[in-house]
Amino acid sequence: MPMANQKTLEDLFLDTLKDVYHGEKQALRAYPRIVKTIDDDDLKQAFETHREETEGQIERLDQIFEMLGKPARGKTCEAVQGLIEEAKEVMSDFKGSPALDAGVIAAAQAIEHYEISRYGTLRTWANELGMKDAAKLLEQTLKEESRTDEKLTKLAEKAANKKAA
Amino acid sequence: MPMANQKTLEDLFLDTLKDVYHGEKQALRAYPRIVKTIDDDDLKQAFETHREETEGQIERLDQIFEMLGKPARGKTCEAVQGLIEEAKEVMSDFKGSPALDAGVIAAAQAIEHYEISRYGTLRTWANELGMKDAAKLLEQTLKEESRTDEKLTKLAEKAANKKAA
Repeated sequence: MPMANQKTLEDLFLDTLKDVYHGEKQALRAYPRIVKTIDDDDLKQAFETHREETEGQIERLDQIFEMLGKPARGKTCEAVQGLIEEAKEVMSDFKGSPALDAGVIAAAQAIEHYEISRYGTLRTWANELGMKDAAKLLEQTLKEESRTDEKLTKLAEKAANKKAA
Repeated sequence: MPMANQKTLEDLFLDTLKDVYHGEKQALRAYPRIVKTIDDDDLKQAFETHREETEGQIERLDQIFEMLGKPARGKTCEAVQGLIEEAKEVMSDFKGSPALDAGVIAAAQAIEHYEISRYGTLRTWANELGMKDAAKLLEQTLKEESRTDEKLTKLAEKAANKKAA
């Protein structure tokens, strides 16, 4: 009989942590290009703020790797890669169009929603694994991501109104 | 001077519709493999129900393409492709492990969150474009996706508890 798979929830937690770590680093690299492409000042500011927040979120992930006694190392996150591809596509297709901002915000919100889902899952698992400090850090990031998403929803309504500009 | 980009919010709506259409069809193809891999009966049932719902969601998208007078055609959705890659990875890495269900649910929730973000955006744009019937259809799907996500959150807690099984 083949040996049963010995992987545990802690392995799953670590794998997912690596995935999110890589995803955040990819997102961090994508923000400057987004800021350069859009014109709206409020929107530029929102992305700039979120870029700074993302740096803090990466530091929190570093701390959790340390709690686990594991090196902080990413693992290719195909999901964020795909999401960033979509963002790049909308930027190149809609550059100079009044619909550009709406498209960029939508792409960013898709990334936010992915991250909200991942951080929610990681927090649940951290609690289950008795890692209370890690759960607290993940909760902080989760709140930031949700606030960013709400801010983008407001900016999205403004952007959609610009269609006839 | 180069000509200004003439693309409109309607173009963006159509592009995003194509993206979601392709994404839903990819997800539909992935569900049977997920159902085959997991053991938990409640979880199998949840995915089976969601597979059926997805068929209805694709029909709604067909109706919206018809309202726009455009052929129902997908456009490669790199995001869902990446998300499905991640789901496949967790299925192969954790097959036979007590953490498998937790990993599969997390991957499915990441897909749900992506779709929730996309449908929310499409509904906002449909309203902005005065497409009230389309907005209503998108709202129906959005509610279904949110209910699925809530159901998965409950199953996720049960799955995380199985870690020591």
